[in-house]
Amino acid sequence: MSDRCNAPVGVFDSGVGGLTVAREIMRNLPEENIVYFGDTARVPYGTKSKDTVLRYSRQIIRFLKTQDVKAIVIACNTASAYALEDVEKELDIPIIGVVKPGAKVACEATHNKKIGVIATEATINSGIYSSYITRQDPQIQVIGKACPLFVPLVEEGWLKDSVTFEVAGRYLRKLMEQDIDTLILGCTHYPLLRSTLREIVGEKVTLVNPAYETARELKQLLAEKGLTNIQSQEEARKYQFYVSDQADKFMRFADSILPFDVNTTKKISIEEY
Amino acid sequence: MSDRCNAPVGVFDSGVGGLTVAREIMRNLPEENIVYFGDTARVPYGTKSKDTVLRYSRQIIRFLKTQDVKAIVIACNTASAYALEDVEKELDIPIIGVVKPGAKVACEATHNKKIGVIATEATINSGIYSSYITRQDPQIQVIGKACPLFVPLVEEGWLKDSVTFEVAGRYLRKLMEQDIDTLILGCTHYPLLRSTLREIVGEKVTLVNPAYETARELKQLLAEKGLTNIQSQEEARKYQFYVSDQADKFMRFADSILPFDVNTTKKISIEEY
Repeated sequence: MSDRCNAPVGVFDSGVGGLTVAREIMRNLPEENIVYFGDTARVPYGTKSKDTVLRYSRQIIRFLKTQDVKAIVIACNTASAYALEDVEKELDIPIIGVVKPGAKVACEATHNKKIGVIATEATINSGIYSSYITRQDPQIQVIGKACPLFVPLVEEGWLKDSVTFEVAGRYLRKLMEQDIDTLILGCTHYPLLRSTLREIVGEKVTLVNPAYETARELKQLLAEKGLTNIQSQEEARKYQFYVSDQADKFMRFADSILPFDVNTTKKISIEEY
Repeated sequence: MSDRCNAPVGVFDSGVGGLTVAREIMRNLPEENIVYFGDTARVPYGTKSKDTVLRYSRQIIRFLKTQDVKAIVIACNTASAYALEDVEKELDIPIIGVVKPGAKVACEATHNKKIGVIATEATINSGIYSSYITRQDPQIQVIGKACPLFVPLVEEGWLKDSVTFEVAGRYLRKLMEQDIDTLILGCTHYPLLRSTLREIVGEKVTLVNPAYETARELKQLLAEKGLTNIQSQEEARKYQFYVSDQADKFMRFADSILPFDVNTTKKISIEEY
């Protein structure tokens, strides 16, 4: 066992959405320590350009390195789409995103080879899900749809709501007409809309939440590199939360979706990294 | 006439919304040159903290000063609410926001002394409209309501739409129950929803768009300071557009709402200012 095993895993997102990924890591790798960063001063990433998202991701990775992380999870589809390929070449520790694991499990799930992807404008425009999926199986048809209102609807708390149902119905109409049998929730906020989405697509469509598969891939990666942690620690020291703005608001949200009390979140100046 | 008269007016916003203010300035002060900056890399401001919005505003003002502007208009309600009071003390050129002019015209418009304000979460939380209004007339009751879904609905282009109508109905219900006779559109995106809002509030409620009054106040301010421009220039040189991200997307939006062709928008690194 390496002496790095006890070091934390860095997890980052443009804001609170990545907490759905952190939650899966906590569930599946309960011994691992986590340093989470949410870029709440510059959220959202989904409407921004590749250059900007890459620059922001590099700053965050520099910050996480100061926290001595042993591995990094990009818990944001947009940053995974726009930054992972570049930053993994620059780093001396393992880094994974949420897109590749999500694409992989979708390929395994589809029977009729028609996969729908819903995500931010940036993730859809990047074509990244399509590219990973067709690399695994060129026969699969991928139909993407940007859903820019989903993040604000989640943040408004309208998770099971007639407005959200109507908006989701419009966004998903074309995908359903094309007879998809698998739908990737390609933005970390979207799993919070799961029951509304389920109502629209019915029982026959498999909903893929890349967070599950990402936690599994992280587990495997840490094992391969001999970095799995075995020393347990109390929760308060185990999970550290950092943001670039609005620490209180973040903490309330984190507290509502994580299965323990989140009592501290620190604000840092991310532009200085 | 001062030799500074020919210098441009700086106008800034978190993104494209401030173009509704720039448009009013163009209409009412057709001789003035304008340098517009939209902070598209960090949009939106309406969910961010005072510290962050103030820091961003200072960077933008430093950039506008490099463009040799003679005066500045903060064409963003959130930045007007959070930054104007601090930055006007630090500046050697005149600066105005959109909130004070909007509050003033609302005070003149109300008969029953009940004014509604719809705006971003940040603007509502700042209590700034209420503070300006009650300073002018302590008898006036101000009822604020944050409408976080309006900006994404505008940016989705759903201006006259059943979903937007339903969302607006919910947001405005309480204001209408309290019998307001005047409604301030306290976010620069909202005038683009005017006809939907009109349908909900009916003909008896006065809709106040602070952009009109801001342009009027700018005109008066420039006249007082001897800074009014009298030399006309062709439009291409007259109006300069800068953004921190996605210049092409900004240009398409600008082109759709301004009454002339917008052919160039330059991207700059605002973090360096």
